[in-house]
Amino acid sequence: MNGHEEDEVVYEIGVVVPKSNVTEGKESRDCVEILEAEFRKVGLIVDRVSGVSDEFIKVAAPLETLGRAAAEMQMRKPTCIGMDLQFEWEEVNAFVKQPDGSLFSWCERFQCYQHLLYGIVNKSDSGIVLNFDGKEFPWEVGQSLLKKLECEGIIKQVFPLHDETKRRKLLRSWALNWWDLTDQPIDEIYSYYGTKVAIYFAFLGKYTRWMFFPAAFGLILQFVDFGSLQLLVLPVFFISIILWAVLFFQFWKRKNYALLARWHINYTIGASQGQKLLGMECGSVQSPVELMKKMGMDKTQEKQLYQRYEWLGYLMRFRNDAIIILSIICLQLPFELAYAHLYEVIGSDLLKFGLTGIYLFVIQHFTRFGGKISVKLIKYENNENTEYRADSLVYKVFGLYFMQSYIGIFYHALLHRNFTTLRQVLMQRLLISEVLENLLENSLPYLKYSYKKYRTIRNKKKHDKGSKSEKIHVTSRVEKEYLKPAYSASIGDEVEDGLFDDFLELALQFGMIMMFACAFPLAFAFSAVNNIMEIRTDALKLLSMLKRPVPRAATSIGAWINIFQFLIVMSICTNSALLVWLYDEEGKWKVEPGLAGILIMEHVLLLIKFGFSRLVPEEPAWVRAKRVNSATQAQNVCSKQLLRSISGGEKTFYGQDKTE
Amino acid sequence: MNGHEEDEVVYEIGVVVPKSNVTEGKESRDCVEILEAEFRKVGLIVDRVSGVSDEFIKVAAPLETLGRAAAEMQMRKPTCIGMDLQFEWEEVNAFVKQPDGSLFSWCERFQCYQHLLYGIVNKSDSGIVLNFDGKEFPWEVGQSLLKKLECEGIIKQVFPLHDETKRRKLLRSWALNWWDLTDQPIDEIYSYYGTKVAIYFAFLGKYTRWMFFPAAFGLILQFVDFGSLQLLVLPVFFISIILWAVLFFQFWKRKNYALLARWHINYTIGASQGQKLLGMECGSVQSPVELMKKMGMDKTQEKQLYQRYEWLGYLMRFRNDAIIILSIICLQLPFELAYAHLYEVIGSDLLKFGLTGIYLFVIQHFTRFGGKISVKLIKYENNENTEYRADSLVYKVFGLYFMQSYIGIFYHALLHRNFTTLRQVLMQRLLISEVLENLLENSLPYLKYSYKKYRTIRNKKKHDKGSKSEKIHVTSRVEKEYLKPAYSASIGDEVEDGLFDDFLELALQFGMIMMFACAFPLAFAFSAVNNIMEIRTDALKLLSMLKRPVPRAATSIGAWINIFQFLIVMSICTNSALLVWLYDEEGKWKVEPGLAGILIMEHVLLLIKFGFSRLVPEEPAWVRAKRVNSATQAQNVCSKQLLRSISGGEKTFYGQDKTE
Repeated sequence: MNGHEEDEVVYEIGVVVPKSNVTEGKESRDCVEILEAEFRKVGLIVDRVSGVSDEFIKVAAPLETLGRAAAEMQMRKPTCIGMDLQFEWEEVNAFVKQPDGSLFSWCERFQCYQHLLYGIVNKSDSGIVLNFDGKEFPWEVGQSLLKKLECEGIIKQVFPLHDETKRRKLLRSWALNWWDLTDQPIDEIYSYYGTKVAIYFAFLGKYTRWMFFPAAFGLILQFVDFGSLQLLVLPVFFISIILWAVLFFQFWKRKNYALLARWHINYTIGASQGQKLLGMECGSVQSPVELMKKMGMDKTQEKQLYQRYEWLGYLMRFRNDAIIILSIICLQLPFELAYAHLYEVIGSDLLKFGLTGIYLFVIQHFTRFGGKISVKLIKYENNENTEYRADSLVYKVFGLYFMQSYIGIFYHALLHRNFTTLRQVLMQRLLISEVLENLLENSLPYLKYSYKKYRTIRNKKKHDKGSKSEKIHVTSRVEKEYLKPAYSASIGDEVEDGLFDDFLELALQFGMIMMFACAFPLAFAFSAVNNIMEIRTDALKLLSMLKRPVPRAATSIGAWINIFQFLIVMSICTNSALLVWLYDEEGKWKVEPGLAGILIMEHVLLLIKFGFSRLVPEEPAWVRAKRVNSATQAQNVCSKQLLRSISGGEKTFYGQDKTE
Repeated sequence: MNGHEEDEVVYEIGVVVPKSNVTEGKESRDCVEILEAEFRKVGLIVDRVSGVSDEFIKVAAPLETLGRAAAEMQMRKPTCIGMDLQFEWEEVNAFVKQPDGSLFSWCERFQCYQHLLYGIVNKSDSGIVLNFDGKEFPWEVGQSLLKKLECEGIIKQVFPLHDETKRRKLLRSWALNWWDLTDQPIDEIYSYYGTKVAIYFAFLGKYTRWMFFPAAFGLILQFVDFGSLQLLVLPVFFISIILWAVLFFQFWKRKNYALLARWHINYTIGASQGQKLLGMECGSVQSPVELMKKMGMDKTQEKQLYQRYEWLGYLMRFRNDAIIILSIICLQLPFELAYAHLYEVIGSDLLKFGLTGIYLFVIQHFTRFGGKISVKLIKYENNENTEYRADSLVYKVFGLYFMQSYIGIFYHALLHRNFTTLRQVLMQRLLISEVLENLLENSLPYLKYSYKKYRTIRNKKKHDKGSKSEKIHVTSRVEKEYLKPAYSASIGDEVEDGLFDDFLELALQFGMIMMFACAFPLAFAFSAVNNIMEIRTDALKLLSMLKRPVPRAATSIGAWINIFQFLIVMSICTNSALLVWLYDEEGKWKVEPGLAGILIMEHVLLLIKFGFSRLVPEEPAWVRAKRVNSATQAQNVCSKQLLRSISGGEKTFYGQDKTE
């Protein structure tokens, strides 16, 4: 990326401004001109493209400009010795290169761009008067130009641009490479989309690969007749899929750490599973400290302040969770049960159809409403960074979806206690949800894009009314990208992006196949096939249907791993219940020994679920050894210098700290 | 400690050598003389005390001697900026002082002493001939003098000495301070005994303080008649004690981290819960690396080697655990059941008494045998350090004790399904075990000491036969200490010390009161009283009955926390079973709704147990903030220097690393 920019300039950010109406009679103070000049002044390479109805300023940055920006931001970057240190342009050799040979990762580059673009302020002594289309407005001293123009509505959007060569390469090697099944070029995805997206696809790939085992087992169960052993086969299947799931998630965590080690991303183990602690987010941890410094407290007071702050946070989160849980139980549960019951009672197919329509309409709004409330609630929690906030949202919203997806099935299972009906319902749901979702996911963005394009052209035609009647085409690549929809979440897009929906789909599928595994073992095979398709369609969506997403710094799948773990525990309980019903109904076992057996099996499985993570650590030994080694190395290198600076200038050191 | 050594020399290590027979005609090469001279040569202060049958060399070290030793050992110590750095005597101001104002903690001092004492080697060009009591033996070049003398049986023991002033102070402020109930001077205990002992007493104190709540609840349950609500009270009690236990252990973990922060001990969060990673044990993590360096492998091979090494370790541990579990189930379980059954069947009290005698005898040997096997097994596991090995032993041996303590009670509970009998058995066990153990714990060391003293004097008398018949007394303090028993574990004292027995007692008590809480709520009150006594008697034992224990570096209660957690889970299950039996027996509830209710309650409690630790992190926010702040500070201080050294001399840096 940064290595060969002499060959070809890669524009990575696009800024959208409306086409100026006064095309010829330009005044000298046209703010777009000024913007462009300022961009050039900070060292960016600028290209201006005129589109159908808007103008686009494409921005690229030479490596040195990025480097200077990174140093200005005091960005921390991993060095050769494994420690994250503040970036210095002069010591560029000390920092680790990305797998693709560039110095900065896409996420870091994006941060630099943001810093550069939004860092353009009025440095002169007096306000400058800008004008656009004859409208005049002041640019105050110290104000950010981009923010001002955004406020005035002149800059419509600032968005990351696709890199055409890389995109084409990925399209060939990834999205259209169907025969690789679950293999994906993860490193290239990482350097093009950043960690969070790469980790999603790594997870999806590994999950699908592991899915082959229960899929095969399910197929065997479906098509082979075990004769008298039939009743024993289901418990064996139950136990093996639970073990499978437990193993899979432990190995996924190990894989996650291995990936981070490969990408030279430093993390802290434990508490915040995979969250980057000493990175960008570090500043926000200290929020009560700033307060303290102002008030000039001593150590005990500081500790008390922290404790109050911490417990207040838990209290808030507890209150929010209680609100969400109660409203789900009191509002959503009766509604879902009412629908499920009505659907059962009503005979006429037409009425059923109508009922489902109403249900879908209401549930849509209910979910959106719940999402909005959740977003509002988490604003009052003192979550340390965006990723934490996103996780908190995920937990809350997943509650809604959980009820929505499974209550109906639970109702069927409880009411009928009939495996054949349950199987039918499951098959229906699985097929419909998966096929529909895959279709929607891929057609909706295209439809949106087409509609936007159509509207743009129509608007343009209206404007140019009567001048020329020749057909107008959207030709410039950057305008096409601008018209493409963003990779945004269906709920709470302030803190989440499209990954939310993709993970939600996976989690709901996982819950569906795991919780009713004993009733419908074939589901695993369906899911395996679906997930193989999902990998490629998601890739296609990201590469050609949508804008390039804004990179996010998260280093794990975040809240979703806990949701998956919760679903495993749920599925231990539900499958036990299913087995009890099954054997009770068929009347071949007596309830007493059978029930006791199933209960014991359940408890043993729960014990395995919770005990296994203690046996095999999440961090592979080689990653750990590398981390420890490099930390020790780093300490040894600077040990003496550090000691001298501490013991010699203890006063000045703490003095520096205070003034910082 | 180190601050005022001008006032009074505190001897901290004692070396025991036999009294020389040739009292007058000393030859110049007497090895004890040489030893003393060598001690002086390395800067130690030496005092020789003659006892009844042995001679004692008391050793003290001035601060500078310790400091030089620490620098030689490349000991890592926490600095003012929170980072552990290699100790340098010149930069002594950079390092954090202990809470009592001294530079080194007792554990660090002990390491320094060990390094100093065992570091005395023959530096001359040729072997030196030593002699003792006319026996001659060579001291080879480069051989450690102490090790040689230990091999030859001349040095009988090297043991840490009590510090009389501090001991007396602690005796007053801690062991005899009965009216403080659960309050203890933890910081003083820490500086006198080191982390592990201090953490045990901190745990015991907090546990006892928290115990007051269920004790009060249990008393209310016992003495208040709830009338028609009686049947509802037990489930409420059950739920509240489970919540109590879950909360307690989470808060204990937080307390543990807070203690470590107060004592300036750095730790790594997560994987090795509270284990010190970058401290002393760091070297042993790299074992496969050394192998690698010899073979000159590249990165992929290194990774593979690590992975093989890691999985081999898991395989070994799995095999060992399987052996232990199988042998417990196949050997111990039938034996315990047979005893319990026979005890029930036999009518005559005399026979019962005899049976119990045989049982106790067999179980003693069985446990010791099991312990020996466990110690042998863990030698084949690649545990990273002594504390890990101790943990591994604890898990294995606890299995034995678990069966031994509870199988009889389970048998009673299952056979009789009668709460009154069960209550009697529990009361019997609790009272007997606690009273007996407290008695034994405190009288046994004293008896041992008296016997040893008696034997020493008798031996002396035999030797001096006919010379004088006056009474001989053990007068020197150091000899008394030498005769006192060590603080050693009953099982596997290679890797554990007396804390093993103390924790075992606590864990068994915890299991007893928690697992049968619904049958005998009064047990909590018994335990609370017992634990208050336990604090003071344990303190008394450590201060005046035993030798000063060798300090250990562990920073948490290690394996025991997991055992306690396991016991909580067990008690959720057993109490649910007890409730089912109770209500089933009395016949007032129907089984179906009652059973379902209890099952749901059980599952909800299990969920809370496993979910709660996610809600409240183990590390308090203020500790975390401190850790993060200091790490960032440290990195900022040396950032530039480090960068220069990496990017400038990248070659030489890695070169250094290779040659290290």
